[in-house]
Amino acid sequence: MAPQDYSTEFFNVTQPYEYVAVVEVDRQRKLNTYTEKMFKDIGAIFSKLSVDPDVRVIILTAAGDRAFTAGLDVTAAAEGPLTGHGIKGQAPEDTARKAWKLRRHIKEVQNPVTEIEKCEKPVICVMHGISYGAAIDISTCCDIRICSKDTRFSVREVAIGLAADVGTLTRLPHTQVPMSWIKDICLTAREFNAQEALTMGFVSGVFDSKKVALDPAFELAKDIATKSPIAVQGTKAVINYSRDHSVDDGLDYIAVWNAAMLQTTDVKDALLSGLSKSKRTPTFQKL
Amino acid sequence: MAPQDYSTEFFNVTQPYEYVAVVEVDRQRKLNTYTEKMFKDIGAIFSKLSVDPDVRVIILTAAGDRAFTAGLDVTAAAEGPLTGHGIKGQAPEDTARKAWKLRRHIKEVQNPVTEIEKCEKPVICVMHGISYGAAIDISTCCDIRICSKDTRFSVREVAIGLAADVGTLTRLPHTQVPMSWIKDICLTAREFNAQEALTMGFVSGVFDSKKVALDPAFELAKDIATKSPIAVQGTKAVINYSRDHSVDDGLDYIAVWNAAMLQTTDVKDALLSGLSKSKRTPTFQKL
Amino acid sequence: MAPQDYSTEFFNVTQPYEYVAVVEVDRQRKLNTYTEKMFKDIGAIFSKLSVDPDVRVIILTAAGDRAFTAGLDVTAAAEGPLTGHGIKGQAPEDTARKAWKLRRHIKEVQNPVTEIEKCEKPVICVMHGISYGAAIDISTCCDIRICSKDTRFSVREVAIGLAADVGTLTRLPHTQVPMSWIKDICLTAREFNAQEALTMGFVSGVFDSKKVALDPAFELAKDIATKSPIAVQGTKAVINYSRDHSVDDGLDYIAVWNAAMLQTTDVKDALLSGLSKSKRTPTFQKL
Amino acid sequence: MAPQDYSTEFFNVTQPYEYVAVVEVDRQRKLNTYTEKMFKDIGAIFSKLSVDPDVRVIILTAAGDRAFTAGLDVTAAAEGPLTGHGIKGQAPEDTARKAWKLRRHIKEVQNPVTEIEKCEKPVICVMHGISYGAAIDISTCCDIRICSKDTRFSVREVAIGLAADVGTLTRLPHTQVPMSWIKDICLTAREFNAQEALTMGFVSGVFDSKKVALDPAFELAKDIATKSPIAVQGTKAVINYSRDHSVDDGLDYIAVWNAAMLQTTDVKDALLSGLSKSKRTPTFQKL
Amino acid sequence: MAPQDYSTEFFNVTQPYEYVAVVEVDRQRKLNTYTEKMFKDIGAIFSKLSVDPDVRVIILTAAGDRAFTAGLDVTAAAEGPLTGHGIKGQAPEDTARKAWKLRRHIKEVQNPVTEIEKCEKPVICVMHGISYGAAIDISTCCDIRICSKDTRFSVREVAIGLAADVGTLTRLPHTQVPMSWIKDICLTAREFNAQEALTMGFVSGVFDSKKVALDPAFELAKDIATKSPIAVQGTKAVINYSRDHSVDDGLDYIAVWNAAMLQTTDVKDALLSGLSKSKRTPTFQKL
Amino acid sequence: MAPQDYSTEFFNVTQPYEYVAVVEVDRQRKLNTYTEKMFKDIGAIFSKLSVDPDVRVIILTAAGDRAFTAGLDVTAAAEGPLTGHGIKGQAPEDTARKAWKLRRHIKEVQNPVTEIEKCEKPVICVMHGISYGAAIDISTCCDIRICSKDTRFSVREVAIGLAADVGTLTRLPHTQVPMSWIKDICLTAREFNAQEALTMGFVSGVFDSKKVALDPAFELAKDIATKSPIAVQGTKAVINYSRDHSVDDGLDYIAVWNAAMLQTTDVKDALLSGLSKSKRTPTFQKL
Repeated sequence: MAPQDYSTEFFNVTQPYEYVAVVEVDRQRKLNTYTEKMFKDIGAIFSKLSVDPDVRVIILTAAGDRAFTAGLDVTAAAEGPLTGHGIKGQAPEDTARKAWKLRRHIKEVQNPVTEIEKCEKPVICVMHGISYGAAIDISTCCDIRICSKDTRFSVREVAIGLAADVGTLTRLPHTQVPMSWIKDICLTAREFNAQEALTMGFVSGVFDSKKVALDPAFELAKDIATKSPIAVQGTKAVINYSRDHSVDDGLDYIAVWNAAMLQTTDVKDALLSGLSKSKRTPTFQKL
Repeated sequence: MAPQDYSTEFFNVTQPYEYVAVVEVDRQRKLNTYTEKMFKDIGAIFSKLSVDPDVRVIILTAAGDRAFTAGLDVTAAAEGPLTGHGIKGQAPEDTARKAWKLRRHIKEVQNPVTEIEKCEKPVICVMHGISYGAAIDISTCCDIRICSKDTRFSVREVAIGLAADVGTLTRLPHTQVPMSWIKDICLTAREFNAQEALTMGFVSGVFDSKKVALDPAFELAKDIATKSPIAVQGTKAVINYSRDHSVDDGLDYIAVWNAAMLQTTDVKDALLSGLSKSKRTPTFQKL
Repeated sequence: MAPQDYSTEFFNVTQPYEYVAVVEVDRQRKLNTYTEKMFKDIGAIFSKLSVDPDVRVIILTAAGDRAFTAGLDVTAAAEGPLTGHGIKGQAPEDTARKAWKLRRHIKEVQNPVTEIEKCEKPVICVMHGISYGAAIDISTCCDIRICSKDTRFSVREVAIGLAADVGTLTRLPHTQVPMSWIKDICLTAREFNAQEALTMGFVSGVFDSKKVALDPAFELAKDIATKSPIAVQGTKAVINYSRDHSVDDGLDYIAVWNAAMLQTTDVKDALLSGLSKSKRTPTFQKL
Repeated sequence: MAPQDYSTEFFNVTQPYEYVAVVEVDRQRKLNTYTEKMFKDIGAIFSKLSVDPDVRVIILTAAGDRAFTAGLDVTAAAEGPLTGHGIKGQAPEDTARKAWKLRRHIKEVQNPVTEIEKCEKPVICVMHGISYGAAIDISTCCDIRICSKDTRFSVREVAIGLAADVGTLTRLPHTQVPMSWIKDICLTAREFNAQEALTMGFVSGVFDSKKVALDPAFELAKDIATKSPIAVQGTKAVINYSRDHSVDDGLDYIAVWNAAMLQTTDVKDALLSGLSKSKRTPTFQKL
Repeated sequence: MAPQDYSTEFFNVTQPYEYVAVVEVDRQRKLNTYTEKMFKDIGAIFSKLSVDPDVRVIILTAAGDRAFTAGLDVTAAAEGPLTGHGIKGQAPEDTARKAWKLRRHIKEVQNPVTEIEKCEKPVICVMHGISYGAAIDISTCCDIRICSKDTRFSVREVAIGLAADVGTLTRLPHTQVPMSWIKDICLTAREFNAQEALTMGFVSGVFDSKKVALDPAFELAKDIATKSPIAVQGTKAVINYSRDHSVDDGLDYIAVWNAAMLQTTDVKDALLSGLSKSKRTPTFQKL
Repeated sequence: MAPQDYSTEFFNVTQPYEYVAVVEVDRQRKLNTYTEKMFKDIGAIFSKLSVDPDVRVIILTAAGDRAFTAGLDVTAAAEGPLTGHGIKGQAPEDTARKAWKLRRHIKEVQNPVTEIEKCEKPVICVMHGISYGAAIDISTCCDIRICSKDTRFSVREVAIGLAADVGTLTRLPHTQVPMSWIKDICLTAREFNAQEALTMGFVSGVFDSKKVALDPAFELAKDIATKSPIAVQGTKAVINYSRDHSVDDGLDYIAVWNAAMLQTTDVKDALLSGLSKSKRTPTFQKL
């Protein structure tokens, strides 16, 4: 099955260049807001891309000019478990049982989002316009974040009465940006713009527009796609492991990892190509 | 008991706005230096504010123009356990027994400072002037740090012959500012100014003077105070948890947390208020 | 044995000032690239400096104008285990046994590099020119990184077909610079310059040239050397511990640590010297 | 869908008593050995039972007199990835790419087995006869293990040339039986009998035969099924959490957990029933 | 203040031998059940004993023949927060706010119980008769558990509709007894007797009666009291640390710990006394 | 170099069977007590055995009938750093500097003992007679412990005024024997015999005499030596990793580990040999 076939109602999956897939959320009339079904869909798409040998890098973006996403589809959510409507027609339920179901429900939304982070291939997130709530949950699962200068970010959840539970409060501290700023944006739900996001290190590039930002994103993706996928995907895996473990544990892990991975012919090919005068780019087998 | 009643000899506690408390250290003739008793007092104040339903945000600041704090009251300390005077009149003590008592003593100072970090409500730290030693111990327990442009910071301890043990060396790395800079300031005890603190991400705002800085601090505090305290305090708790745990652990924790907290009527109130045209700010029950 | 005597074929060890040692890699005709033997040598040098009472601070730099290091000596490595040449003349070996030996081999290279991090004394890394591959492995073990403005950094490994396994992928996230940028530079192996390294916080100072950069490095080193070595080395140890542990664990550790270390006369000497008008710099016993 | 409907080719799922489900592996002519497909099936069954409100306890057992399971179906496996046959007809593959696929493959087998551990409901494992290899992987995911006196256990993997990778080596140390004995049985692959398993604490009951063992298993299951499912499932969840975390973390977790769960009416019902003379067993809502 | 003065309404604190304190719960007409106030009292008593230089070992026991404790005073609790009565006369409260208060309340009960574990001196728990619920919470905080043969243990909480939250579910796995048995007793709330507790390793001695058990407890206590308190209390501290940390962390911790503690004259005194013919028991300074 | 050549003054290293090495401490006239030099020697021996392809299992035992070891050579130690004699002839030293050196010294003793644990090959410890102090430090580094029935164990350190710091207090809890018993033996320094050690799970076998115990030790060793070394050594490595990590981390680690190790021909050889009628023992390549 080709990446194209992974498309769903609100997600376009394309493959504009060899080894480079693009996932585009496209629900423009609702500012690309996410329903619960859409969280499941995006998770499923990334699970498939993760093991697709024809894909080496993924760009995540959003259709239209207005929004990467305005977050959760609040109208839909207002009829769901968050406001108690999810259980209509039933006898009033025990608080603990409601809690039990809410916990299951939160995990059901968390899990597909985590699939983006677990995706074996690097994911480049290109953000623009309104980037609220779920925009942060999702982009913090990506490896590299860039944006257009019109991007308006917000960790929105406090404004709607809840502590963000789809990943933002957990992953934002692990993006390694200053904690004083993280607390500021999370406790106030205030907007911050592209320049602030760049200064703080949340994004690593700001461009004039989404259209303009996609160019360097594609250059980046194509460049990564020429590299050994053994090297690239191992690099992603080991950095993510190191983020959550001590230095000693990290050193041990990469040693076990590379015990197998250094046996690839990619190293020899890349090494020798680098040593030769021709500097011919080596071609690497699929993974 | 109202927040005002928490005041002590060297700490003024006031409540200038609904839900907003201010803790001001006021020992100006000694540059707001801390004695051991003062550490206990500030810990006790924050313990009380932590569970006071009339308080939703706390601003920590210092009286006078000269100093947030020049750190430990060295004159007092010079007569205490640090220089061996603490045991005067006694037979020379066994080194290990002295060590045992020093460890207890360090924990007795650490514990009240940790109460600031454990405070359930967000704490905004407004620094100015001399901000040495204990200034870093204390401000790294706060959620958001801003300062006036005349602030002179220093991790002072190395200059007085010791490794900082009231929290600086432990919490500074967890403020998520660059490690090369942390080592630089901690190993040299050199001063750094407000601009450097901002560039590095240690503070998230610099203002012309303490007086000027208090304005945005109050705006920030008042803004947070209008939000659901369930959402605000949950956000603080979960970010702090995530700082010390892996992403997987963090996701699990917020799911358990929100199993109860999403059952608040605050979500419905905030959601519906957001959806309505009026944008009427909802009022939330005390917590 | 004096620090000078620790010199090896490709490493000059000198002591230009009291308590300040300089380790200079000097293999200029090969762009200061590292062979396996050189990793062992640098590890051994730092092990010795770690416990040498005549040394309190170490500056790590490289000879010549062109490179801090261009990384692994690829020509040498191309004849070693990475490309399968290491086992020539032997019957083809079982994959698992090869893996077992590779894991041992990786650890044999990791271990001496880790000696730089474990060195009890602060290490200031002064980088310049080409700073590829091993340059990152090694500099992330140092406490403070500064560089000249001509420095060209690169996490080179992906370009030669492998995930970096000598420490970069593990320690770079713990330098506490933004993760989006870390992923960018590690997944692309692209060069970044001194200014970018400064903005991101990877280095904490950029100077006109290596020669110019060595001045502030020496100033810094000499300043640290005047401080109590008990205080300085304890500060390094506790920050490194805190990096890998929770805040609670960190507070407990420093309390145990200082139970002994506060009994030094250095505290009294430094405290009293600070209190006296003369501000005479105290002299501290060797450690 | 009723538990009965979860049955698959080699697994019978029944519900002999209210709230008590039985999962029985039934592939007797092959000594109940597991194919890869069967691992997926048992995982899927436990995922469904985990959230089925009609189920409160699960008994895991095996059909026939001869074996709980003789482990992996080695004949099938001998044609699969373990012996290199999995890639027949293809060009010889790069070692690293083979490693990558093996890692994915191991996780694909691990994941369904982990579903047994993750199952929200307690699982009682009743073992008998040959209980090799996968028998340990699977039973260490269960909460309570009992067996018949004819049970012959073996951590078989070392005998077939591999370190067990479906969970045994990871979970066995967490069953909290003596490590010297764990190493003995894992390094030798020797058989151990029911009495030894009991003495060491691996099982908590030995009975005359599988038939006889099922009686106390059902008594146990029926007893647990009369208890509040909020209490029972919370107890399982919190013990499993505590196994992998420090005491401090565990205390914090149960406090967050019970913040919601103590609001159940089950507590009041159980408390008051216990206080009343009648000792009438309370009935609890489904979960 | 002498240990005797720590007594409260329901706790008798005595000092029958030099350095040996006894804490006896005495609320016999209520089977020594605990009210919330009593948890606070026992915590306060152990906090004081922890730093009392006249105390080196503590025995925790209970008055009367019938019970160590029947657990929580359910009659009192039935009027408290567990059953919703705690908030009578108030408007119905928001679920999340109730949860928030419950979490605070759980911690308020957990904290004093944790004081028993944190007590610097070893605690020997002598159990007898009914030992339900809180009996397990409390005894798992003690270092050594012995009991009389009439002891009837039960992790009672599941029977009253809740997951134990005062420490049992967290500390029981860390007593290092077999997990299959832990799950059995926790999920069923069934009684187990002294012999079973001994076989499983939960207690390390069973004696004919409480009276008889107190003899070896006193022998043990008096023996420990003759040892160097630096050695004894360090041993307790380091084992507890090691329980929650990896072997590497544990080795590092004891090295830092003993850097101070080996400087005690106790080592010389004990060493030399052991080497001398006389075998005179050395006397150690108070701690 | 053959194992035999690893012998030192007080350690005999022999190889009585193919792939089976024996390390015997032999300093009988001093009850096989350890000097500092001997700790270094035993560490060096195990480092070499760890990578010696002719060795697959190691038996650690002691010469003579009287003692496995009576622990530290107290007479030698009494002249060393423990009693302050280590620094004779010098001016009185600063407490903190003394502490610093003691910490280094402790690590210098810990490190070689840790080499026994790190040894890639399984180590079977055969204990007899007096087994005090260092006997526990060393045997807890071994994988399997058996003993003769005359063995007299003691965690001796408390009796000589110190908390054990060469590993006992850290590793004993990780042998997974009941904590109440661990505290009992460590806090009292009392002797316990072979039967108690067996009941508690500290040893996994007791035999009539050292001579008799060596038979099953050799049988065990020879049996393990016939197994695939890839499987055996991987099993040891992964169990040790799992001991210090969560279940999730453990599962991930074995998956990475086996990605390489399953590519061994050992699996095919062992699998096919098991499937064939002949049951011919396969021969495995050295590792």
